[in-house]
Amino acid sequence: MKILFHGQGLDSDSWLAGIRRQLPDADARCWSRKLEADWQADYALLWHPPAELFQHQKALRALFNLGAGVDALLSLPGRPEEIPLIRLRNAGMDRWMSEYVLYGVLHFGRDFDRYRIQQQQRQWHPLQSRPRHSLNVGLLGLGAIGAEVATTLARQGYAVRGWSREPKSIDGIDTYAGRACLDAFLAGCDFIVNLLPATRDTRHLLDAARLAALPAGAVVISPGRGSTLDQDALLAALDAGHLRGAMLDVFAEEPLPAEHPLWSRPEVIVTPHIAAPTLVAEALEQIAADIEALEKGRFVPYVNVEKEY
Amino acid sequence: MKILFHGQGLDSDSWLAGIRRQLPDADARCWSRKLEADWQADYALLWHPPAELFQHQKALRALFNLGAGVDALLSLPGRPEEIPLIRLRNAGMDRWMSEYVLYGVLHFGRDFDRYRIQQQQRQWHPLQSRPRHSLNVGLLGLGAIGAEVATTLARQGYAVRGWSREPKSIDGIDTYAGRACLDAFLAGCDFIVNLLPATRDTRHLLDAARLAALPAGAVVISPGRGSTLDQDALLAALDAGHLRGAMLDVFAEEPLPAEHPLWSRPEVIVTPHIAAPTLVAEALEQIAADIEALEKGRFVPYVNVEKEY
Repeated sequence: MKILFHGQGLDSDSWLAGIRRQLPDADARCWSRKLEADWQADYALLWHPPAELFQHQKALRALFNLGAGVDALLSLPGRPEEIPLIRLRNAGMDRWMSEYVLYGVLHFGRDFDRYRIQQQQRQWHPLQSRPRHSLNVGLLGLGAIGAEVATTLARQGYAVRGWSREPKSIDGIDTYAGRACLDAFLAGCDFIVNLLPATRDTRHLLDAARLAALPAGAVVISPGRGSTLDQDALLAALDAGHLRGAMLDVFAEEPLPAEHPLWSRPEVIVTPHIAAPTLVAEALEQIAADIEALEKGRFVPYVNVEKEY
Repeated sequence: MKILFHGQGLDSDSWLAGIRRQLPDADARCWSRKLEADWQADYALLWHPPAELFQHQKALRALFNLGAGVDALLSLPGRPEEIPLIRLRNAGMDRWMSEYVLYGVLHFGRDFDRYRIQQQQRQWHPLQSRPRHSLNVGLLGLGAIGAEVATTLARQGYAVRGWSREPKSIDGIDTYAGRACLDAFLAGCDFIVNLLPATRDTRHLLDAARLAALPAGAVVISPGRGSTLDQDALLAALDAGHLRGAMLDVFAEEPLPAEHPLWSRPEVIVTPHIAAPTLVAEALEQIAADIEALEKGRFVPYVNVEKEY
């Protein structure tokens, strides 16, 4: 079996070593224009590949996306649509994402944002933080990762609600589904957490009107995809004092341009797309299991592009 | 039954209302010099009371300390030593304390301290954070609160160890006991969390030598009592680059004086003694249960001053 790897910004050596460990019988190589013409891979493991890769590789039976968000791969011109596309469904990312969101909820929920300002002013002034059960955390997106974030926050004692396109049910979580319920969902959120994929439907889902639907003093936490949040609307809502702050890991343009005003807002935490890193060992565990299933003709959950994007 | 209340810095109205709710048959009053001489309370609920209170109240059968740390009450001249002293053993503080420590571990463990600096410099530079199971968090103190902090952190996936004066056993936690083991305990701690009470034995327990016993790059989290940590030694260890940072809620002098150098250290988070607030309802629930037990002649855990302090 031949496996092709291309991971922009990823450490190829660790990935190839990992592939050889998980799939010792496979012939695994990095993509390069100089691969012999007759070296045709069965499976490709990809992260932001060049479009020309598909012009050379004509025997691919499945594409594995080395992350949860397949938006970059979907928008690639010349992607062969007939080849099944498989995403990392979880692969350990859920717990990293949960940590990221938990940090954001603690940061604002326990008033560490205000204590930071007091520290700069050398002020000793204890605040009465709201108890955790009175803090409503709303999750946009209840996939594999969203469900784990919901469970982690609920276990910590927060009041958690979740919104998804299709109805879902998670123990201990109030769930909402569909556009019609979105404003009712937002109206009760002290924190809104964007965990949605980048699709036609989610583009600027959090726009000026939706941010206005949040209660005054709400906080936006966005570790999903940058396209979901209208950044200009966010800045306006912060300027207007309607929102208390934000914690952003993803942006309309990444890296966030050096001149962008978000960098210098004291009430905004900017991180460089690190909320849920792809973990080599965990990712390859899923991929190896998926390949084994494919080889045996068993079911593997593909990305349903028509329906989901 | 007569109940006397004095809580410096506390909201007397909420406390008196709470006492009347929990103990509807009691005659509850706030301390004042003007209380009639024949109004002699059975129980006193105290936080930093004036010494003269004990000159007027001669029928007290137990003193309740409105916090976990009884150091202020113990050092009060004229405290009647024969009257049993009862502390808040937990009363909901454990979960607030767990949140505080978890925030500190996430802040440094997920490199949010470094991302903050990068944000100030408008730098987009993802870091490879260490996975949680490789981060060793060491707790000094394994009482009611320490045990809950240990369990919370272990559940999050951190490698947790605990140190106490007397041997203790907690599921999933490596425990160490006694001075002889302290350096061995410290040598493996990426985070050291001070949850010890203020006693003769704990004064400057974390001194220059003990901070040097921590591995390079360690972080100090101190929400216990300020006397445990030698602040000058901490500043020196930060200056030397031996420690990565600190998160401090308690200090040798509180409020932390405005001119103190700790306020302006970028790698130190200063908070004004808010890690584990005393919660009126939860505290009074314990106190009411303790009073009921005392009235029925049943066991209530007193502070053993001789042994513990």
